[in-house]
Amino acid sequence: MSDEQLWRSRIVDVLDFPSEGVVFKDISPLLAHHDAFSAAVDAVVAHHLEAAVDKVVGIEARGFIVAAPAAYRLGAGFVPVRKPGKLPGPTHEEAYSLEYGANVLQVHRDAFSPGERVLIVDDVLATGGTAAAAARLVFTAGAEVVGFSVLLELGFLAGRAALAAQHPGVPVHALLEY
Amino acid sequence: MSDEQLWRSRIVDVLDFPSEGVVFKDISPLLAHHDAFSAAVDAVVAHHLEAAVDKVVGIEARGFIVAAPAAYRLGAGFVPVRKPGKLPGPTHEEAYSLEYGANVLQVHRDAFSPGERVLIVDDVLATGGTAAAAARLVFTAGAEVVGFSVLLELGFLAGRAALAAQHPGVPVHALLEY
Repeated sequence: MSDEQLWRSRIVDVLDFPSEGVVFKDISPLLAHHDAFSAAVDAVVAHHLEAAVDKVVGIEARGFIVAAPAAYRLGAGFVPVRKPGKLPGPTHEEAYSLEYGANVLQVHRDAFSPGERVLIVDDVLATGGTAAAAARLVFTAGAEVVGFSVLLELGFLAGRAALAAQHPGVPVHALLEY
Repeated sequence: MSDEQLWRSRIVDVLDFPSEGVVFKDISPLLAHHDAFSAAVDAVVAHHLEAAVDKVVGIEARGFIVAAPAAYRLGAGFVPVRKPGKLPGPTHEEAYSLEYGANVLQVHRDAFSPGERVLIVDDVLATGGTAAAAARLVFTAGAEVVGFSVLLELGFLAGRAALAAQHPGVPVHALLEY
């Protein structure tokens, strides 16, 4: 079985989660399988092994599960981007739109130094709203986003185009597309 | 500088977070430093490299940042223990006491197989309430807890004694004690 077949066999559709009418792609079985998890982390960073990545950003909470081992694999530092009120120090924040209303993401003001090279890693690329907001937080600090890397991309939500519009020239890699 | 000196230099006291009178140990600067983070992950799993660990449990949300790379380093699967309503599939749950009231942790019912060897990893050992509840979730599934491993232990909260009382014989390792 190829890595892609293994990953696809361990992503489960859950109907009506988190709300009615939504089909949630549950990656828990993939994470729980040692070979699938290990290969997924390796693949997430595969395009960035030769480029010096200083820090990997993970987005609360499931994003941490992929981004933190990606940072470890790259020998990079890890920076959490979190929902309001979770980070103890002074923060920058960015809002992003949802279907109804908006959410806010925060990062510590001292999380990056100017010129640092930052990879943004998440579990899923949907509309691209959270990833784009995370990138704005990196740019606010004067650091550089060298790429977006995700386990799976929900192609019908056009997140890749949204990222390209806001952050042109930053490569987007996804292990799987649905 | 030793690893321990490096780690201690990058853990910051934040007063009155998350509530007045609390001194929060912020590990963000440690996570963001590539050498400190990498050495911390290695040290968290150091006592378990020779024992076959099937799965590593991480506790939402900061616990994921240490536990997921620990799973990757061990070649193990990763299982998230989460707050209610976050996991899409059928769950087991366990309550644990807080100073005022109680909280609940959940894990997917199919997360473990009987007999699997599980390491529980978290960022901080405080009262031991969450770690003990996570261990009960592992035992409920018929799997075995081979150890608890944390970055830092708040010794004055006696979490180590609480874990020993509820889960005798399971080793507890902490990189740093305060």
